[in-house]
Amino acid sequence: MRLSADFYTGVRRDLRARLQAAELDGVLVTAPADVAYLCGFFYAVTERPVYLWFGTEPGRDFLVLPHLDTEYAEAQEVDVELVTYPEYPGVVSAEQHLADQLTARLPQARIGYSQGVAVGVLTTWQRLMGEATFMPFSGLATMRLRKRPEELVFHRAAAEVCDDMLAAGRALVEEAWRAGTPLPTESDIARHVIGHGTDELYRRFDHVIYTTKLAGGLVYAGPNAARPHGLPSARRLQAGDTFILSLGAAAASRFVESERTFVLGEPTPEQERYFSVAVQAQETGTQAMIAGRRCAEVNRICLDVIRDAGMGQYLRHRQGHGIGIQQHEAPWVEDGDPTVLEPGMVLSSEPGIYVPGHGGYRISDTVLVTEAGPERLTQYPRTLEQNVIA
Amino acid sequence: MRLSADFYTGVRRDLRARLQAAELDGVLVTAPADVAYLCGFFYAVTERPVYLWFGTEPGRDFLVLPHLDTEYAEAQEVDVELVTYPEYPGVVSAEQHLADQLTARLPQARIGYSQGVAVGVLTTWQRLMGEATFMPFSGLATMRLRKRPEELVFHRAAAEVCDDMLAAGRALVEEAWRAGTPLPTESDIARHVIGHGTDELYRRFDHVIYTTKLAGGLVYAGPNAARPHGLPSARRLQAGDTFILSLGAAAASRFVESERTFVLGEPTPEQERYFSVAVQAQETGTQAMIAGRRCAEVNRICLDVIRDAGMGQYLRHRQGHGIGIQQHEAPWVEDGDPTVLEPGMVLSSEPGIYVPGHGGYRISDTVLVTEAGPERLTQYPRTLEQNVIA
Repeated sequence: MRLSADFYTGVRRDLRARLQAAELDGVLVTAPADVAYLCGFFYAVTERPVYLWFGTEPGRDFLVLPHLDTEYAEAQEVDVELVTYPEYPGVVSAEQHLADQLTARLPQARIGYSQGVAVGVLTTWQRLMGEATFMPFSGLATMRLRKRPEELVFHRAAAEVCDDMLAAGRALVEEAWRAGTPLPTESDIARHVIGHGTDELYRRFDHVIYTTKLAGGLVYAGPNAARPHGLPSARRLQAGDTFILSLGAAAASRFVESERTFVLGEPTPEQERYFSVAVQAQETGTQAMIAGRRCAEVNRICLDVIRDAGMGQYLRHRQGHGIGIQQHEAPWVEDGDPTVLEPGMVLSSEPGIYVPGHGGYRISDTVLVTEAGPERLTQYPRTLEQNVIA
Repeated sequence: MRLSADFYTGVRRDLRARLQAAELDGVLVTAPADVAYLCGFFYAVTERPVYLWFGTEPGRDFLVLPHLDTEYAEAQEVDVELVTYPEYPGVVSAEQHLADQLTARLPQARIGYSQGVAVGVLTTWQRLMGEATFMPFSGLATMRLRKRPEELVFHRAAAEVCDDMLAAGRALVEEAWRAGTPLPTESDIARHVIGHGTDELYRRFDHVIYTTKLAGGLVYAGPNAARPHGLPSARRLQAGDTFILSLGAAAASRFVESERTFVLGEPTPEQERYFSVAVQAQETGTQAMIAGRRCAEVNRICLDVIRDAGMGQYLRHRQGHGIGIQQHEAPWVEDGDPTVLEPGMVLSSEPGIYVPGHGGYRISDTVLVTEAGPERLTQYPRTLEQNVIA
């Protein structure tokens, strides 16, 4: 679970070119995902700041990190210079350590920053590095839109694990159902599938790293499934329930998500109707993920299937979002995102139908945009007949 | 697991007074913990912004949130006006929805913001609300330093669960050890204790909400325990290991942490020596948490025990940090924090000794500062003889 030195060499070459085009000496990177993307340092995020200086001059990059994490960075073979500060907040702050290093090397640097940096951090940098010039820089975000072939190896590995997690969750319910033993709760299922995914990742990989998590899962059944964002509850599954397994997994912090809807017992006509529209919207929306088309247009094509079926009032969210080193990242498959799809983008395709008091229907795949069209990385069966437990 | 209306009334009255003293018309709240603290809305944090306008004029506050979360906010009985935007990024942005509402009510508002807000968000607000004046405001952060009696009820409840989690983790290891069956892995133990804590919270409370999580756990054994921040691994426990259970739990998102060190088998003189210094540092440091004393001074008193024992080279972090609606929050029990302790502050006391290649020793309690002195909320036994599994 480690990207090769070649990957990092390629990413850095690309970023240097973008910095030069923007007439910057370098960029101060603060987001954990950006740090991991550029130098392979994955860490538990706390209030202790981690700052990566990445400059146009090769070999002079450095990472400011707390003493606590030094051995962890070395174990991950981070190949930029490590500048350690003792603790947070510190008698001498992390920002002062950063400023001392950077001012000594480049007193009048032209420094890029992301719009995501906190106001307090930027103003502290400006105060401590009075001769430097600070400018917003979005080149790194742009680079991350298209995944590199080496990253796709891990996205594919995560997709296999995520499909396995779906199978494990279904099996847990199916075994209890057939044996006539008490059905599991939402929380039981969530724990079972997360455990299964975590075990699989440890079994398949030696060097296991993460940003936010390895495997995650939300489980909603019956009326709870009408709320796409709740926490799994202690509610036990019941005959007649529709239930959603909304699962994610990451290898080398390259995420996928895979979500399926199941029906427990013989489906009612109402369940059949909603399920069929959810499957159709997901199929149409996924096939619409064509290079050259805008995100907003893909989203319209997808959600129109639901609206045209007279179910527009049950929409609660867009078709999907980009997935990469973060579980949700740009581009956004939504009306307000004019981004044109390009090969190498990885997106979720997950339209949903949420009927208050009744239940929810959502099917999500992680989709790779290729020259030849959309390719689903997650493969678990999707149709009602394949996902009835009876 | 719900704070009463009286709690929110009290918090809001206090904040209004602080806003008036700062000559502000209100504050735009963006941090999920601050939103939860002021209006009881707990939500899954994604890229979709949630903004709370909280003004000096009572009854005119409003919460800007995505359509997706509206029913969830209603279920939580959030009692401020809900202003919904369709989706992220949206044809009309969340910031525009916010600006439309605020400008209509108070075109020339004096608006406070936290230093934690993203640069891109603040500049967008400034662009869309051209007649308003924006000023940094830290009054809310100051308020959160001291916990209110109603919050302490939940901190205490979480402490009971966290102590139970320690017992469950120990029992898992002890049963395998006595039965002669394979010992669990770090990952097995972590999953077991998190599951136990989650179940307990669901069993004890009806309305379960969260910010980041309900229960969490890191487990490190043998040489892994020398790295205070790694991820639990697939390494199986071995006779002779020192191992750390580093656990946390939250009720109504009021966190505690409780961490204990165990020895598997008869302790060696080396293990006894490190363990005894770790216990002594934690005891001395905890008793030093006296109202009126500065954080930096408490930290020095605590870590001096380790330094005076000739083990200063094995320090990797400060004594502790504040705990509240966030797992880590101000004040920081560290050399660089001059905050004077006050009754109502809740702090971790968790000095650690980390011996590369050998193992780690950390004992952590969650401590309430009272007029009468420090009170440990977590109670699980701490000494070596109580925590040897043999």
